Amino acid sequence: MAKKVLIIGGVAAGAKAASRIIRRDPEIEVTMLERGEFVSYGACGLPFFIEDKVKSYEELISTPTGVIRNPGFFKNVKGVTVHIKTEAKKIDRKNKIVSAINLSTGEELEYPYDSLVLAVGGTPVMPPIDGINLKNINKLSTIEDGIIIKERLAGKKIKKAVIVGAGLIGLEMIEALKHWGTDVTVVEMLDTVLPALLDRDMGLMVGEHLKNAGVRVLNSEAVIKFEGDENGNVKKVITNKNELNADMVLMAIGVRPNIELAKNAGLEIGESGAVFVNEYLQTSDSSVYAGGDCAESTNLLTGKKVYAPMGSVANKHGRIIADHIIGDPLSFPGILQTGICNVCGYNVGRTGLSQRDASAFGFDVETIISPAPDRPHFYPGNQPIIIKLVADKKTRKILGVQVIGPGDVAKRVDVVGTALTFGATAEQLSTIDLAYAPPFSPALDNIITAAHVMMNKLSGLARGVSPLYVKEKLDNNDDFILLDVRSPDEYNSIHIEHPNVKLIPLGKLREEAKNLPIDKEIIAFCKISLRGYEAQRILDGYGFKDVKFMDGGVLAWPFEKVAAD
Amino acid sequence: MAKKVLIIGGVAAGAKAASRIIRRDPEIEVTMLERGEFVSYGACGLPFFIEDKVKSYEELISTPTGVIRNPGFFKNVKGVTVHIKTEAKKIDRKNKIVSAINLSTGEELEYPYDSLVLAVGGTPVMPPIDGINLKNINKLSTIEDGIIIKERLAGKKIKKAVIVGAGLIGLEMIEALKHWGTDVTVVEMLDTVLPALLDRDMGLMVGEHLKNAGVRVLNSEAVIKFEGDENGNVKKVITNKNELNADMVLMAIGVRPNIELAKNAGLEIGESGAVFVNEYLQTSDSSVYAGGDCAESTNLLTGKKVYAPMGSVANKHGRIIADHIIGDPLSFPGILQTGICNVCGYNVGRTGLSQRDASAFGFDVETIISPAPDRPHFYPGNQPIIIKLVADKKTRKILGVQVIGPGDVAKRVDVVGTALTFGATAEQLSTIDLAYAPPFSPALDNIITAAHVMMNKLSGLARGVSPLYVKEKLDNNDDFILLDVRSPDEYNSIHIEHPNVKLIPLGKLREEAKNLPIDKEIIAFCKISLRGYEAQRILDGYGFKDVKFMDGGVLAWPFEKVAAD
Repeated sequence: MAKKVLIIGGVAAGAKAASRIIRRDPEIEVTMLERGEFVSYGACGLPFFIEDKVKSYEELISTPTGVIRNPGFFKNVKGVTVHIKTEAKKIDRKNKIVSAINLSTGEELEYPYDSLVLAVGGTPVMPPIDGINLKNINKLSTIEDGIIIKERLAGKKIKKAVIVGAGLIGLEMIEALKHWGTDVTVVEMLDTVLPALLDRDMGLMVGEHLKNAGVRVLNSEAVIKFEGDENGNVKKVITNKNELNADMVLMAIGVRPNIELAKNAGLEIGESGAVFVNEYLQTSDSSVYAGGDCAESTNLLTGKKVYAPMGSVANKHGRIIADHIIGDPLSFPGILQTGICNVCGYNVGRTGLSQRDASAFGFDVETIISPAPDRPHFYPGNQPIIIKLVADKKTRKILGVQVIGPGDVAKRVDVVGTALTFGATAEQLSTIDLAYAPPFSPALDNIITAAHVMMNKLSGLARGVSPLYVKEKLDNNDDFILLDVRSPDEYNSIHIEHPNVKLIPLGKLREEAKNLPIDKEIIAFCKISLRGYEAQRILDGYGFKDVKFMDGGVLAWPFEKVAAD
Repeated sequence: MAKKVLIIGGVAAGAKAASRIIRRDPEIEVTMLERGEFVSYGACGLPFFIEDKVKSYEELISTPTGVIRNPGFFKNVKGVTVHIKTEAKKIDRKNKIVSAINLSTGEELEYPYDSLVLAVGGTPVMPPIDGINLKNINKLSTIEDGIIIKERLAGKKIKKAVIVGAGLIGLEMIEALKHWGTDVTVVEMLDTVLPALLDRDMGLMVGEHLKNAGVRVLNSEAVIKFEGDENGNVKKVITNKNELNADMVLMAIGVRPNIELAKNAGLEIGESGAVFVNEYLQTSDSSVYAGGDCAESTNLLTGKKVYAPMGSVANKHGRIIADHIIGDPLSFPGILQTGICNVCGYNVGRTGLSQRDASAFGFDVETIISPAPDRPHFYPGNQPIIIKLVADKKTRKILGVQVIGPGDVAKRVDVVGTALTFGATAEQLSTIDLAYAPPFSPALDNIITAAHVMMNKLSGLARGVSPLYVKEKLDNNDDFILLDVRSPDEYNSIHIEHPNVKLIPLGKLREEAKNLPIDKEIIAFCKISLRGYEAQRILDGYGFKDVKFMDGGVLAWPFEKVAAD
């Protein structure tokens, strides 16, 4: 009798596993159950569907040549049997049978299996806040969710929307809502945007960008209640600090893995809260696999199990599961918790560990901040990006990178992600032969330069301090000199306003050094802090005792700056 | 007495070394001699200066904040003494003295050194062809060259230009010349464009793009003579096949390292023809360094010494040299001969070994071709890219990649370049956690998919054959079926015209398989050959004996296609 593979969940990991199993062994009977109406779709495209960049949801469920991936397609083209609107209710692991229910007819069904794949995804967290069940309080996870939100927006009755949560999905949805003329406010409990993705210094800069783009972001603010009108539609979001009018709310505070089915079947739930799996994506029952947003992953750098629901990971899981079922296994080493998004024209990406996460895990961390144009400054259309690199002082290995700015962020994140995967040190990163021509990068790519700055810092040659450190000293009115070594023109166009700031252009520093106090703490900076670093080296050479420079210069200063009118 | 470092050549490697030496040790006396008028400039920006994307050559020699890097700048800001228009003539290694001449005054000068850095660059090859010394036959290497060419073009008298050589510089110059209304013909001795960078299949596709962009490229054609008018201006380019009218010629057949100074001083010249250096960029005399376009590099994958003049490599050399002189050495492991350019809106990049080079070196090579949009097909603005991946059958290590197309080529080249540096296998490449969101990439990045295709091929699961193999069989009228498994609509919009082609859409293949001859060679394909591969797997399952698929499908077919009107 043919081997039976049953797959529960048909979006990413499930659909990928199904197709590959049959491609590898057409003798296997593959059946896929999907609770919803749609299978094999690009859920990450939903914000762009809502924004109307993608006109029809059907584009999200089509092949690149425009064929809709419905059960008929899966049958004819892939050889997979798909049952939609069919929800699995119980796994009988002893007899290898899954009970399900047809959501349209109510019919109870049973599906036997030899191998079972759980690809049941995750669900946006809807906390038990007063009024959470009012109408127009939305989550965004499925195509069905996206259709509802878009219909409401297209009805033009949504004047004010509140996004709760400034994570990836929350921020991606800003432009989608603004597209329909909706006024958007973002409420975030923590003190910066993208608090899980970015360190505070980088998050502050993204927040600054959003402010400049006219988006109202309320940080360090918690929603305590929703209020509705007489029809049960949401009208107000009450936080611990504000009352916000709202015709629509999007809850985007996180995603929780769907573990009920697994838990009820006695499968192990991992420390991350998602279904436990080994490196072949097998659960605690070797004939049951789990992949995608219901399963946990291993962080490659810490070895720790983490929950990181991402479409890219889910698709990889699907393939690993298929190959193990076929009997030609490849292990899945783990992930870097890579994330990227575009927020109102600003690109934001992270891979590996943030400074915060690396320190919390126990690494002795060094960081640098390196802002620069993404192409040579003379090449038209170049755009700035700001790189924060995190390394381990002991091994000099790169632990993570955060890159933000309007320029080409994705390339730099992916280069570092690739380097991290192979345990690259700062030195190794600095010598990679990256592709150079002016339309693509500076002669020394921004990542190479960042690695150089890191090497200088790790070896004690460059003594950079973070803008957060400098801000604290300014706020405390500490006695030190914040030495701006840019030109007077640069200073006039934008500068940090404080009595401690002193302007000496780098070209004059050699002659004016004698007028500076040799024992006082001096923190030099410029636009990006290359000249700031050079100033430190020059003053070091003159025997100054306590000179540092400020990481990232004016460009990476995440606090108030005074600009020329 | 202070240690003296003398640097000959002030463009990339030289200027970089000078600045870093002083930053590390301000006690060292650094002197830099430059034959030309300009130092520390972005020579790779010259085509864009000529195209007038960069308005003034001064932008190429300025810092990002607009300060011109002249001798005064180097003195005041960097602490480096620079002598321009000063040409080194002889190295007396025994007494550690360089003789030079001031090209403006004719004065003879002597510069003693403790460490010497040769950064004297390379020179475009000007072969001894009849008439090569006629006016308006140009080379492009220095700012001075660029100024001359741009002045001539801006004079509007250049109606027809011939570019000799379809390498990186030749192709980058097409748009620069066309910008001024000049009609451009490219003459290339070999049978494809970018013959050193790309394999033939990829080169043919770039050539096809140029043809579609209205550029006349004459391949397999050699220049045998230039003819001039009564004033000695070039008028005609005579090849072995054509007579071409030309008011301007650009010679771009390659660059030769400037080795005379080193050779006359008895320094070893390497097997690549450039100055021999070890991993610290020391020449055969340990107190003499060489870097940039006059020095050779080591190919990381073959260990072979190669000559690869690139601005990105030169800058890295400069830093390595500085650190070794300081006494804090870091070795330079080598390069991947990475190259990238934009050719009339089409991006073309390569890193690592081509199929040709890898085979020539003795690797047992596997290749795949994988075309796909650079972002999800539903995301507006997505653009195709075509990836050719080269791997070693024995170790499954990736050896190189070529990526072409209007989409984001640079990111994929750099990811593979980084992976190559660490000896990644196809399997390792396939599990890297690259950054995914629809504005940046498909859920499985094109490189991950390419790695998957490679894994399928290496394991014998996918039997892909190259388009060149199929073309040869068609031309020979071999008896086989070229099975197009796309939809009739797709077929009608563009197809390969030949009696051997048979159309069976993939969705109908399971039922129509019985009508196909089970023993005959069948080569399936589709748009990109995912369905082609699925067709192979389906027919394999039905017991067919000799089914393959064509790498890259219609999208990567580099020969004539019939399109709907």
